[in-house]
Amino acid sequence: MTESIDVSGNTYVVGVDYGTLSGRALVVRVSDGAEVGTAVHPYRHAVIERSLPGDDKPLPPDWALQHPSDWVEVLQTAVPAAIADAGIDPASVVGIATDFTACTVLPTTADGTPLSEIHPDRPHAWPKLWKHHAAQPQADRINALAHERGEGWIHRYGGKISSEWEFAKGLQVLEEDPEIYAATARWIEAADWIIWQLTGVETRNQCTAGYKGIYQDGHWPSREYLAALNEDFADFVAKIEHPLSPLGGRAGGLTAQAAGWTGLPEGIAVAVGNVDAHVTAPAAKSIAPGQMVAIMGTSTCHVMNGARLAEVPGMCGVVDGGIVAGLYGYEAGQSGVGDIFAWYVDSLSDELTHEHLSELAAQQPVGGHGLIALDWHNGNRSVLVDHELSGVLIGTTLATRPEDIYRALVEATAFGTKVIIDAFEESGIPVDEFVVAGGLLKNRFLMQVYADVTNRPISVIGSEQGPALGSAIHAAVAAGAYPDVPAAADAMGRVERAVYTPDPQRAKAYEALYAEYRTLHDYFGRGENDVLHRLRRIRNEAHR
Amino acid sequence: MTESIDVSGNTYVVGVDYGTLSGRALVVRVSDGAEVGTAVHPYRHAVIERSLPGDDKPLPPDWALQHPSDWVEVLQTAVPAAIADAGIDPASVVGIATDFTACTVLPTTADGTPLSEIHPDRPHAWPKLWKHHAAQPQADRINALAHERGEGWIHRYGGKISSEWEFAKGLQVLEEDPEIYAATARWIEAADWIIWQLTGVETRNQCTAGYKGIYQDGHWPSREYLAALNEDFADFVAKIEHPLSPLGGRAGGLTAQAAGWTGLPEGIAVAVGNVDAHVTAPAAKSIAPGQMVAIMGTSTCHVMNGARLAEVPGMCGVVDGGIVAGLYGYEAGQSGVGDIFAWYVDSLSDELTHEHLSELAAQQPVGGHGLIALDWHNGNRSVLVDHELSGVLIGTTLATRPEDIYRALVEATAFGTKVIIDAFEESGIPVDEFVVAGGLLKNRFLMQVYADVTNRPISVIGSEQGPALGSAIHAAVAAGAYPDVPAAADAMGRVERAVYTPDPQRAKAYEALYAEYRTLHDYFGRGENDVLHRLRRIRNEAHR
Repeated sequence: MTESIDVSGNTYVVGVDYGTLSGRALVVRVSDGAEVGTAVHPYRHAVIERSLPGDDKPLPPDWALQHPSDWVEVLQTAVPAAIADAGIDPASVVGIATDFTACTVLPTTADGTPLSEIHPDRPHAWPKLWKHHAAQPQADRINALAHERGEGWIHRYGGKISSEWEFAKGLQVLEEDPEIYAATARWIEAADWIIWQLTGVETRNQCTAGYKGIYQDGHWPSREYLAALNEDFADFVAKIEHPLSPLGGRAGGLTAQAAGWTGLPEGIAVAVGNVDAHVTAPAAKSIAPGQMVAIMGTSTCHVMNGARLAEVPGMCGVVDGGIVAGLYGYEAGQSGVGDIFAWYVDSLSDELTHEHLSELAAQQPVGGHGLIALDWHNGNRSVLVDHELSGVLIGTTLATRPEDIYRALVEATAFGTKVIIDAFEESGIPVDEFVVAGGLLKNRFLMQVYADVTNRPISVIGSEQGPALGSAIHAAVAAGAYPDVPAAADAMGRVERAVYTPDPQRAKAYEALYAEYRTLHDYFGRGENDVLHRLRRIRNEAHR
Repeated sequence: MTESIDVSGNTYVVGVDYGTLSGRALVVRVSDGAEVGTAVHPYRHAVIERSLPGDDKPLPPDWALQHPSDWVEVLQTAVPAAIADAGIDPASVVGIATDFTACTVLPTTADGTPLSEIHPDRPHAWPKLWKHHAAQPQADRINALAHERGEGWIHRYGGKISSEWEFAKGLQVLEEDPEIYAATARWIEAADWIIWQLTGVETRNQCTAGYKGIYQDGHWPSREYLAALNEDFADFVAKIEHPLSPLGGRAGGLTAQAAGWTGLPEGIAVAVGNVDAHVTAPAAKSIAPGQMVAIMGTSTCHVMNGARLAEVPGMCGVVDGGIVAGLYGYEAGQSGVGDIFAWYVDSLSDELTHEHLSELAAQQPVGGHGLIALDWHNGNRSVLVDHELSGVLIGTTLATRPEDIYRALVEATAFGTKVIIDAFEESGIPVDEFVVAGGLLKNRFLMQVYADVTNRPISVIGSEQGPALGSAIHAAVAAGAYPDVPAAADAMGRVERAVYTPDPQRAKAYEALYAEYRTLHDYFGRGENDVLHRLRRIRNEAHR
């Protein structure tokens, strides 16, 4: 599959990063990873949460859909714009790779046509974005049955399959719109669907199959298990089954049609689909066992390789070759981080910006605000894996100021990260280095809080476009410029080690606050007082 | 003491209400309680919290002082201005009465000179405002020792003496500035001190002696008890002991000096000192047993007469004749109500006013926001009597809007009221009617929430100046215009019955939320998780 590629300096690859609200293309030099041009295309339909395009009928709560044409438009606009920004000859581009949010998943016909093109008036025909959380009842049953039947795979997912993933969302389609379910020839991750558009052939990547599709040790969940969930769900695997391709592999050559969209040469290497968080690890040159990469933005995703297999409570998943071939890829996450800060700041007076609040908060001694928050405003996908939890703030007085609350929210997310690190270490998977990528990097106050709370030095990715750079690295491997992802990451990735270091006194002071966080975490999160679930139920019933 | 007074229409009394930030004078017609003129004078020094006047040295946390000259200025400015506003002949005024915040207490010489005039540089020489909360360590010892020794009086105060009251504040002076303590000939409520200024003679009222001074069944706490607290505190009672005068009694005649300040006739009746909350009950014509009057403003005070003596957990106190002679006067309270809403709104964008938030919140179904708050931002002086508690908010999501939080805070204070009503009823003191006075009356949304949460009709005082009208009623009794407070209240008080009525469906829906509130109340308030205390301790140490 590989060909001889000049890595001496004048060949390029394109990485395309599909985010929640926009897609970004990045042109990268193969020889050294230099980022030479970039462009962003915001999705015309953004996130479809209220009603379907051209329709007034409200969608139920917790729905989140996307429009496939928005993704194709990124290829048509952002890729040529990035090439133009780079000022390079498109003919010098030898490969393209993409990364996507996940699990973002859609039903298609056998030839990959999205069902939303055929049945635009049927909500279940549309792609379900990762943050579509309306399949929780299905996820609950998936989990209960897996534990009841002693399904071994459930422990590869921290004991819980998320409502965000392929099986829960698929089962929701079956149970709420059986006609659309029946019409679904392929149930496919957008990460793989976009590759199908680029190459003209269906491929499936090992990463999403493992993390989002419950593929473990060469098997999908059994027909018996699926039939016990719902007898019409017995053959669900037929809609997702396909030979799996390793990350960095060549999915195919760029079709003439896709060459027309992108302005890139027909036939260049297209890499196997991948996920935004997972591609960031090689971009941050942090793929050795024990290097935990946290991609911090609206939410945080943690990816880390491990030399051995372990079952970490509440992790999102462990997948053999899920990040790079030959190692166990672990994923964990926090479902609300930057989102929580933005939610809080949005309600405040205009002068209370993130920058201003961070500056004020940075001057405080640890514990000086008297507050503890739980960072569950968007649920918990960390050790509790429970999207129906919600946020908590305790300790407010009439003297509490907005910067106090802001600091408490930042600290809460740092405590949430520490819970994850602790879970790994307690499961025998050491975390040797904490590496940060993503938009929150620019908040130095926040980074220092994380260093102090975790009592660890923090390394920082050397790119503002981690995922797109990670995709570019995979494109270079797919194009044959490097023998494998580690070699490409070594040449093209960038990281600065120990940019933030913990202050011993502050780290010590945080121990007491972290203990309080853990107590509240278990009280509200593990059923001792199930009030957050009851409040959500009351809320949902009140709006019925 | 009484003289013959014309009540046919052309005689007047003046009620002066001393609040936290200003004093108000109200001119009232004796015959029917008509309010004919009023004026307000804001205290020049407001609340002294940061440093003493003319001094830069910061006061410790939780201190709150006032300036006695501010109180005299109210007599000099607001009283003549109110007379002018009324357009009446000052000669037609037959009496004056005052009510005050309590326990606001000051050290004086034997002739009533405030020690702050003699030692202006000594913080402990200054009057301690009711919300001075720095005597908590002393209050804790007072309570622990009372229970240890089985002092019967402690149960008249719900089992806890507040750090706000005379003994705790007095002990703080002794232990932190023994010289000022030694120089204190009289330790006197501002409620009585202002009467001393008007009449030239010291008097002490039954109300503050009972509620704030631990005077029960004819006795003060024993010398042995006080010596066990601190041997130098053994003779503390000598600083407060004095014959007690009944409410509505005549303290004396207006001195020539005070006549000069106020422009009122020398020698007219001056009523015995009283407290802002307690005088409001007659103003609201609600002094029968079982009529609970809630004075709702920055905080809420509940006063109610009962036909019999009971020991209600967490009540502020029960005092024989504490509201009107011949009945047991019960007092309870919530230390933060309007203050909490103001604190929240202050941080928000300008367009998010109380009015706008109330309007938006009023449209929501019960439980529609998914939130529960604990209303302890200023501590709890309700059944927990613990000023070191703090606020809690749970259930926030990224979809939570400011009006949701506003509504949850309003509801939290309503739940807090229901806790108090329940405590009375469970102790065998029925609450037959709930009557509201105070500034929060004007928020119709809030009033409806209280009706729905308590599942009771709400009566409303017919005056915007409840305390000042209540003082005027006492002035009329002191002047001999009526035989007693009930008769005067009947003629001069005003109330509208059942202005708000509960909606049965909403009341039912609130039952589930109230149950959640109670669970959290006990979890955070009764030591199951003492995190709020620990966070406060950490906060205080962090700022040291």
